Amino acid sequence: MKNLAIGIDIGGTNTEIGLCDNQSKIIALKKFKTQDYQSELSYISTLIENIQLIIDEIPSDSELLGIGIGSPNGNFYTGRIEQAPNLNWAKNVPIVNLLKEKLKYPIFLTNDANAAALGEKVYGGAKNYDDFIVITLGTGLGSGIFANGKLLRGYTGFGGEIGHINAIPNGRLCGCGKKGCLETYVSSTGIKVTVSEMIQITKRDSILKKFKFAEIDSYEIFQAAKQNDKIALEAFEFTSEILGKKLADIIAIFNPNAIFLTGGLAKAGDLLLSPVRKYTEENVMPIFKNKTKIEISKLIDSNAGILGAAALVFNELNIK
Amino acid sequence: MKNLAIGIDIGGTNTEIGLCDNQSKIIALKKFKTQDYQSELSYISTLIENIQLIIDEIPSDSELLGIGIGSPNGNFYTGRIEQAPNLNWAKNVPIVNLLKEKLKYPIFLTNDANAAALGEKVYGGAKNYDDFIVITLGTGLGSGIFANGKLLRGYTGFGGEIGHINAIPNGRLCGCGKKGCLETYVSSTGIKVTVSEMIQITKRDSILKKFKFAEIDSYEIFQAAKQNDKIALEAFEFTSEILGKKLADIIAIFNPNAIFLTGGLAKAGDLLLSPVRKYTEENVMPIFKNKTKIEISKLIDSNAGILGAAALVFNELNIK
Repeated sequence: MKNLAIGIDIGGTNTEIGLCDNQSKIIALKKFKTQDYQSELSYISTLIENIQLIIDEIPSDSELLGIGIGSPNGNFYTGRIEQAPNLNWAKNVPIVNLLKEKLKYPIFLTNDANAAALGEKVYGGAKNYDDFIVITLGTGLGSGIFANGKLLRGYTGFGGEIGHINAIPNGRLCGCGKKGCLETYVSSTGIKVTVSEMIQITKRDSILKKFKFAEIDSYEIFQAAKQNDKIALEAFEFTSEILGKKLADIIAIFNPNAIFLTGGLAKAGDLLLSPVRKYTEENVMPIFKNKTKIEISKLIDSNAGILGAAALVFNELNIK
Repeated sequence: MKNLAIGIDIGGTNTEIGLCDNQSKIIALKKFKTQDYQSELSYISTLIENIQLIIDEIPSDSELLGIGIGSPNGNFYTGRIEQAPNLNWAKNVPIVNLLKEKLKYPIFLTNDANAAALGEKVYGGAKNYDDFIVITLGTGLGSGIFANGKLLRGYTGFGGEIGHINAIPNGRLCGCGKKGCLETYVSSTGIKVTVSEMIQITKRDSILKKFKFAEIDSYEIFQAAKQNDKIALEAFEFTSEILGKKLADIIAIFNPNAIFLTGGLAKAGDLLLSPVRKYTEENVMPIFKNKTKIEISKLIDSNAGILGAAALVFNELNIK
């Protein structure tokens, strides 16, 4: 029998459900709008219907091992989605227990950054690594950390909050309540704020001046940088310097094989990667120089969220 | 049969060899001066003689499971002491292999900060914790990190260099070649430099003004602070603020049960602990507030080095 897992990627916009093997193939896929639901009951009910439709598509030569869920603020230990800021129905949802009432399979939950790390381990560039870190650069900065071949969860399940280490003393106000957190500078949101700050104080021209703040995203900044827009290029340099300096610290702490960048901002590829590598190597302790690979995630253009959630099943059940 | 391990603590001044059970009792002890030796051959030969004397004292109801060594720059993976700055005979010594030629027991090596963490796990305050950190505040700042119940080693064996994360951009020159590393501020050496800087720029009186720079140590600063010396108190406050802010970052990354402080500077007890706790809690991400114990190591006044090295044996052989 072929081993399969269902991976569920709960995003602020869409919920995607995929039937996956452990070779990164998605055999069946369903999706629905996360934001159409105001209560956990109606959301969970639609979710179960869709899972059932996926289960009906399992080929006869295959076996479903379990269901993995990746969600913002998903807690592996409690099986709950706790206070997810972008999910209006998710104040404190015991999603694992709610699904278990209807579905007789092993069900696991984790947060989206940990799912990204699991995906990289099972399907991506980290197959041969026991010590690596995946950094997701989206609305915020999340991280999934493997140490000694295991996902670092922390004792209450909230390990890996690299986005909330301090980057700039008394710096930008963060959604968490602190000031100067790394994610306020290094994320799709962070680079957008950087550009808006730069535009306000410069007399120089920039392609980016034509956008309203709400319209701009890391994609537009990336496009402008490719056209050699000075403000966009400086924003990438500024962002990369802050990230590189912090990666130097992270390397001193974890001595990892590799660090993978993913998420919207990482789609800039070399424009981000080259300066990040430069600033990391400039700031790293001499014994770690040129010892850590820094790469864009191998899954950045695939259904990374679904694969990461499915990888949680293979990882927890120890299926290679 | 009672399970015993030999723990060897290689320090810059003394080498101590203890026969230990797994309840923190040291049954036999030998020591000799590390600095009396100029070559690895003469040092290793004396070390083996002393181990043999300890082996001769093993009671008939007990069994020696193995030998653990804690040393500056001891590498678990290679079994070598590599470029230890305070050991003049240790350029690159394959100590595990050299001992194995003469002693037919399992032999393990680790660095002194990792040994401290192992000691805390087996004998100290971390018996019930899977996620904790021991920070040694001596000449430098070392750290031993447990994540998921296992010591974090990193892929080349150099994980846990928290002493070399950046504390102050472009700050004090560090022995590693970088500037502003945490250990240049937060260590016995760091607080001594802080005091000397403060004395140079103040007109205020201080007990510490009578000491020459070479004579002063964290002990004298601690004594002066107990007598309400303002410079000494400010030095503790300054040191604690830098450490507390970094511990807030460390908590966001690891979400540990506890952080233990040990080494010479930690002997100041509450004088260090109270402000460190205050600054940590002030700077920690809200979800981690009051979630992490910060304590002085339970082994700070015992033979922590020997116990940590012996703990390595019990840990590697999975003996509870």
